[in-house]
Amino acid sequence: MKHYLGIDLGGTNIKVGVIREDYSIVYKHSIPTHPTRPAADIIASMADLGKTALNAAGLNRNDVDYIGVCVPSSINNNTKRVIFANNLGWRDLDLIPLFRREWDIPVYLANDADCAALAEVRAGVASEYTNAIMLTLGTGVGGGLIFNNQVYSGGDGFGSEPGHIVIKAGGELCSCGARGCFEAYASVTALIRDTKRVMDEYPDSVMHEISRENSSHVGGRTAFEAAEKGDEAGMLVVKDYIGHLATGIASLIIVLRPQAVIIGGGVSNAGEPLFGPLREEVAARVCISGSVGIPPVLRAKLGNDAGIIGAALLGV
Amino acid sequence: MKHYLGIDLGGTNIKVGVIREDYSIVYKHSIPTHPTRPAADIIASMADLGKTALNAAGLNRNDVDYIGVCVPSSINNNTKRVIFANNLGWRDLDLIPLFRREWDIPVYLANDADCAALAEVRAGVASEYTNAIMLTLGTGVGGGLIFNNQVYSGGDGFGSEPGHIVIKAGGELCSCGARGCFEAYASVTALIRDTKRVMDEYPDSVMHEISRENSSHVGGRTAFEAAEKGDEAGMLVVKDYIGHLATGIASLIIVLRPQAVIIGGGVSNAGEPLFGPLREEVAARVCISGSVGIPPVLRAKLGNDAGIIGAALLGV
Repeated sequence: MKHYLGIDLGGTNIKVGVIREDYSIVYKHSIPTHPTRPAADIIASMADLGKTALNAAGLNRNDVDYIGVCVPSSINNNTKRVIFANNLGWRDLDLIPLFRREWDIPVYLANDADCAALAEVRAGVASEYTNAIMLTLGTGVGGGLIFNNQVYSGGDGFGSEPGHIVIKAGGELCSCGARGCFEAYASVTALIRDTKRVMDEYPDSVMHEISRENSSHVGGRTAFEAAEKGDEAGMLVVKDYIGHLATGIASLIIVLRPQAVIIGGGVSNAGEPLFGPLREEVAARVCISGSVGIPPVLRAKLGNDAGIIGAALLGV
Repeated sequence: MKHYLGIDLGGTNIKVGVIREDYSIVYKHSIPTHPTRPAADIIASMADLGKTALNAAGLNRNDVDYIGVCVPSSINNNTKRVIFANNLGWRDLDLIPLFRREWDIPVYLANDADCAALAEVRAGVASEYTNAIMLTLGTGVGGGLIFNNQVYSGGDGFGSEPGHIVIKAGGELCSCGARGCFEAYASVTALIRDTKRVMDEYPDSVMHEISRENSSHVGGRTAFEAAEKGDEAGMLVVKDYIGHLATGIASLIIVLRPQAVIIGGGVSNAGEPLFGPLREEVAARVCISGSVGIPPVLRAKLGNDAGIIGAALLGV
């Protein structure tokens, strides 16, 4: 059976995985990134980790055709350069030759959100489709578009960044510097901001109690937990959050007409109290959805393994 | 030299064109649609018009491989049915068999905005590119996406409708029933609405004079003309309009990364007073545009011929 090797480079950890062609993970491991190191050192660690993983899986260099690498950065898919990796301080880095100086193996490179999307379409919740959008709702809103079973990198090669469509001109400030981006409403960061605002307005909300029981921590789950207990303020936060999420998803559906929309990241753990109302709100917001229907809105299932699986499958 | 035959069905007129493979139009003609007639009658007129055009161009049936038809409707590009043509009152119409009952020739069918985009990419202002978005700023905002030189119809076949992305959640009411759509800010209809609002607020604006000189008509040019004369209120309308247009274009660039953005329709006649500031505003709104640049924003050049040219080229 054929094997694939993937590396998922993050700001905190470097993960590696060896995948079989049935998409099962036969080996995985993770080491700290130490992101303040020089890029060349981080890349050398990645190469070593790839070799170690092959050995640990009982394979050798000839058992894989290439290594797939997923990075937390925009990629120019025409030149294959890393454009801007905020967490690592990398700008316009030509990673592939640096990697091959350490280990001379063909390297496929992609953005982390694109890898996650590819993994879910090939091996995850959307495996019956070939065209899908995936949104990862975390600190930001990562997005990947799979078109005809491949990562869509667009006419100029820079790849789709659906987290930065504007859904409310002049609205909340986004980490990118613009106002009103989808990410500024649909990320966990935005959800926590809005939860805290509503908590300030509703001193009697159950959310205060939930936060106190949790070492005064307010998280992406706080409002959902309160809403499940019937708390008015919690329900308000959840309703607004789902409304904004649905607005962005509806815009993406109208432009891209995917076969499926996949939602991953921390917020997706809220499960049906999120997905049930979200599907209704998306249907209500997509033009002519009465005539043409809307694609299914699915919960991602590969979790933290999506990066290594997607990276491993980049050359397939 | 090869020839192509295209029909552009509109709510007012049915246009036909015979195109040579160098994209020159060797014959064109137009007849009234009389849109309240039964669909079968309109389709019979289209078939007759196609035959007439071939004869008039000195060609016969064997000189063309097919007829391309562009319709003012969403199309299901998987089933090739007309979903909803507002101007004609057509819903879920299977046009192709009806057409072939009149004239047995292969028929290619596409949405009018998609045909215009295809025409501009193949034979118009964007002929050096293979991936582009075209926006037609008219009564509504039509949009077409060309990907690898073909109309992008998406994973479910319904085609891209960029006019209905939401750029301001909860904002202006759109003709589609949603609030805050790009179309509700960037169409000529929206520009006229906003021009009238600002005229009400600025009774001394030059726009009143321009309107009076034009039989009390307020149009898409009124604010631009006033702005060129240095009128503060006119400049305000133009600035806001360009800002909204740039917001929607930036969102589309971020998701689709086209090689070019093409702007057509009545508003595009404003020329450089529109395009100059628009390019600056788009660059200011696209995330990481400092690192990756933005695609050129071009003025469409095929005008009213875009529909017949795009339809004629659907099978190429």
